[in-house]
Amino acid sequence: MKQTHFGASCGGGELALLVEIRQRAARAASLSQKDGLRLGIGDDCALLTPRRGEELAVTTDLSIDGRHFRLNWHQPEAVGHRVLARGLSDLAAMGARPVAAFLSLGIPRSLTAIAAGRRAGTRTWVQRFLDGFLALAEAFNTPLAGGDLAESPVAVADIVLIGAVPRGRALLRSNAKPGDLLYVTGALGGAAAGLARLAQLASPAGPNPPRISKRLEELLAPHIYPQPRITQGLWLQRRRLASAALDLSDGLSTDLAHLCQESGVAAEVDAAALPIRPAATMEQALHGGEDYELLFTAPPAARLPRAIAGVPVTRIGRILKPRAGRPTMALILPQGTQPLEPRGWEHFS
Amino acid sequence: MKQTHFGASCGGGELALLVEIRQRAARAASLSQKDGLRLGIGDDCALLTPRRGEELAVTTDLSIDGRHFRLNWHQPEAVGHRVLARGLSDLAAMGARPVAAFLSLGIPRSLTAIAAGRRAGTRTWVQRFLDGFLALAEAFNTPLAGGDLAESPVAVADIVLIGAVPRGRALLRSNAKPGDLLYVTGALGGAAAGLARLAQLASPAGPNPPRISKRLEELLAPHIYPQPRITQGLWLQRRRLASAALDLSDGLSTDLAHLCQESGVAAEVDAAALPIRPAATMEQALHGGEDYELLFTAPPAARLPRAIAGVPVTRIGRILKPRAGRPTMALILPQGTQPLEPRGWEHFS
Repeated sequence: MKQTHFGASCGGGELALLVEIRQRAARAASLSQKDGLRLGIGDDCALLTPRRGEELAVTTDLSIDGRHFRLNWHQPEAVGHRVLARGLSDLAAMGARPVAAFLSLGIPRSLTAIAAGRRAGTRTWVQRFLDGFLALAEAFNTPLAGGDLAESPVAVADIVLIGAVPRGRALLRSNAKPGDLLYVTGALGGAAAGLARLAQLASPAGPNPPRISKRLEELLAPHIYPQPRITQGLWLQRRRLASAALDLSDGLSTDLAHLCQESGVAAEVDAAALPIRPAATMEQALHGGEDYELLFTAPPAARLPRAIAGVPVTRIGRILKPRAGRPTMALILPQGTQPLEPRGWEHFS
Repeated sequence: MKQTHFGASCGGGELALLVEIRQRAARAASLSQKDGLRLGIGDDCALLTPRRGEELAVTTDLSIDGRHFRLNWHQPEAVGHRVLARGLSDLAAMGARPVAAFLSLGIPRSLTAIAAGRRAGTRTWVQRFLDGFLALAEAFNTPLAGGDLAESPVAVADIVLIGAVPRGRALLRSNAKPGDLLYVTGALGGAAAGLARLAQLASPAGPNPPRISKRLEELLAPHIYPQPRITQGLWLQRRRLASAALDLSDGLSTDLAHLCQESGVAAEVDAAALPIRPAATMEQALHGGEDYELLFTAPPAARLPRAIAGVPVTRIGRILKPRAGRPTMALILPQGTQPLEPRGWEHFS
């Protein structure tokens, strides 16, 4: 947010927008300076001071209209929430505490204007995007420390999250061992089921996202307002219980394949053990993306609770030694074991 | 680069591209692990371990086709170079050494295919983009530590740079004092002059960027291959000579206005002292953006050399106390002093 490329000499409404972002971010950041952010928006760079013995975890995630969200499907607050949730979820997967977020936002000029029409109210799209973004940021004590703003023919948002973790203690994808057990937090398939329902509600022609009735809110929440598992990742990291972890962004089958590849192991999943969201199918639980739950492994001797900070923990399978002629991933069904192929759900493709 | 949203199940050419990026980045990163990057591409986050007593500087810059570059004006290598140079220049302005870069790239699918036609050769646009990007990264010992990759209707590249600087020693915009003298590195206006020439060469209709003759290379270089002043920023920081600094990305008049605002000071510039590039105009030197030189202040007692690592240092003005009824910025011309308005050059607007 150090500069803008929004209009000649950065005048008028765009300058006001930058000032608003800076002010709103500063209020949030002032609460967080003790936790590592020494200098936020306003200079060429932000400055972060990790605590002694910590290292920093860094992740970036690019979200593009039509691919990771849709302006005519998602309310602006939901887009802001989802953009940040993607990044926070990567920190959760490493067992890192959030230190700062950076947001690069490219949007059509129309999204900085107040929409006409009965429903629109008096706030612009980008203000409502920030409402959703900053509400989640506050919930996880994550100051917005900088970013960039530009006019773009298509709405794009790149989120950068920086977290801190004691040196050598981050949860990696590469440390699962044969014999380890396989766990997930929460329930699976809810995001894919919610998206499928949202797609039915959305009008293909209309420019505005559908209104969500109270009755549907709960069903759609896993897709529209996914909850990053920061608390659960920190818990696992601090107790040194997990041998490997990652977040379920691409879908269980695809993310488990990543874990197997990075750790050089095989895995089997008990279909009967999968915690499937009500209204979701087995297919959505296995291959639906964006649940943002944690998938992790732990040695058999590790004593895991049934829930961490209110979120259930479920054992869903085990890690095996890779063996020639056996599929890397297998699904155990009542009728027998079958290969599990990575068929991670492709966002809006 | 931990995942892709390029195609169903990330198959075929896109997976090959991800593997190629990871391999090329790993080769570069292996040289840099001692300098702070402990874990690069492949997990949910990269891990950085700053040295004792260091803090981290973070910057993000969004580049969009049609706004910060043009696919039909700029060769892919130049786009890659310019994207990274923008980020490195922000680190230079803080006096930070580069630790790691992260790249979020959204591109049309066609840019991952090999172009037809006589000139195109056998490399894809994105491979050539990486050639330019990684050549500059290597020159400044900056490993590509992660990022994201997605299909996008418009080409976008968000660059994140993380640097390290001894705690409390970063060069800020906010520390200029009345009485300080004002300096720039290098020469000004070259990027704007180069862009103007490139615009003449480019065919508005054709899809391909113009070929640059040997004769024109030098004239266009400040625009096409800007050099971030990392070495000069580090030099100033280590010797504690500069009171404030920033990089000239938006143009001298606009960036000086930023410095005045953040420091709460006024400034005057001697027009006769400005180091203007051959072929550039005074107008381009004052308001042309993207020169990526450093603008900095130093107390009058500071002894500055004529050049730092071969790049000239020129005194161009001084910092004043703000006074009611006097413009914040003034330009001293032979015919008298006039107000200097921020009229930073707007990229492609």
